[in-house]
Amino acid sequence: MSELTIWTLDWVPEGPRGFVRDLRLRWACEEASLPYSVRTIAFDGRETNHLAQQPFGQVPFLKDGQLELFESGAGLLHLARKSEKLMPRDPAGEAETLQWTIAALNSIEMATVPWWFLKISGDKDNKLTGWVGQRLDHMERVLGEKEWLAAGRFTIADLLMADVLRIPDIRAFGSRPKTEAYVARVTGRAAFRKAQADQFAHFAAGDREKAKASN
Amino acid sequence: MSELTIWTLDWVPEGPRGFVRDLRLRWACEEASLPYSVRTIAFDGRETNHLAQQPFGQVPFLKDGQLELFESGAGLLHLARKSEKLMPRDPAGEAETLQWTIAALNSIEMATVPWWFLKISGDKDNKLTGWVGQRLDHMERVLGEKEWLAAGRFTIADLLMADVLRIPDIRAFGSRPKTEAYVARVTGRAAFRKAQADQFAHFAAGDREKAKASN
Repeated sequence: MSELTIWTLDWVPEGPRGFVRDLRLRWACEEASLPYSVRTIAFDGRETNHLAQQPFGQVPFLKDGQLELFESGAGLLHLARKSEKLMPRDPAGEAETLQWTIAALNSIEMATVPWWFLKISGDKDNKLTGWVGQRLDHMERVLGEKEWLAAGRFTIADLLMADVLRIPDIRAFGSRPKTEAYVARVTGRAAFRKAQADQFAHFAAGDREKAKASN
Repeated sequence: MSELTIWTLDWVPEGPRGFVRDLRLRWACEEASLPYSVRTIAFDGRETNHLAQQPFGQVPFLKDGQLELFESGAGLLHLARKSEKLMPRDPAGEAETLQWTIAALNSIEMATVPWWFLKISGDKDNKLTGWVGQRLDHMERVLGEKEWLAAGRFTIADLLMADVLRIPDIRAFGSRPKTEAYVARVTGRAAFRKAQADQFAHFAAGDREKAKASN
């Protein structure tokens, strides 16, 4: 098996810790017991210091032997081809996993991330609130009908959807008990806890390097 | 080969014609010479009349024999597995196609669609303008370096990226000649023109049905 490397930043401020998207790839590798190492690019100059690897100046990107992929969603779909634990191998299960993975990226996150941008930019009258609320209503209905999004079992579609849904403050949109229970269930998995703890430890090590450099 | 069916609405107002996302799936089928038929759900009641097929009440969704997939991005990745014309078969070409397909959905469209929502909602001070502009700057740089996004040839990544980029008014963000030339080149393909003409004809037939019904 070729070696997997997840690239992320060497350090970030406290706010985004636990949410930087290398977590998605760490989590998938942990679920599937795929060995991986983590390498870093500098936080300072991140907008332009790795455009050859990630044309939007973001993290993560994934190296798999000679292959390189950016976009966490693409990394997840790539990893899913390596392990049945991440995606079933039958055509129906694969199609269901694919559609819900894309739905997390393009129907939910496409609404929640811009909503969050407007929120942190201090917009009092956030015009995306209605749109996000509608999408979350649909998810609440879906999650009232089934425990897992695809194929009746955990897949990368759940990994991604739960990661997308834990970011906006769902409670700001009113009570959605099915969605809250789903997010708690999926992020309660051992692989998520390990991936998140590892990310916190990684950035704490970055704190120590920074302190050393300034001494 | 199993039969492909693209589901869309029976009618839409003039504004969205030429942009409804069944066009993406029609276009891919035309590129790959995959035979398909088109079936419809009613425009009236579309928010709730097909939630079993598309949980967000949108179109398109794709039927492939016994399989059903919603999300146009998932449909494209599914179709790409059927024809090398849509995605190369070597691992590097496939990974490049995948990453740029997801980039179109989650790095560009995630910014442009909410920007457009704010624009049509009459927001004078569109706070997503800076974000969209930055993403378009990155694309302008990338498209100055290569003719096609993946594998040095046309793939579904170009189909999707060009479709995403033709929707916002790029000129509102200043001149980006490489991007404009790219969109013109990709949407100049015979398969796009056929798909778009077919979509216009489809909704024109919907006009006639509506007129008949009201007589």
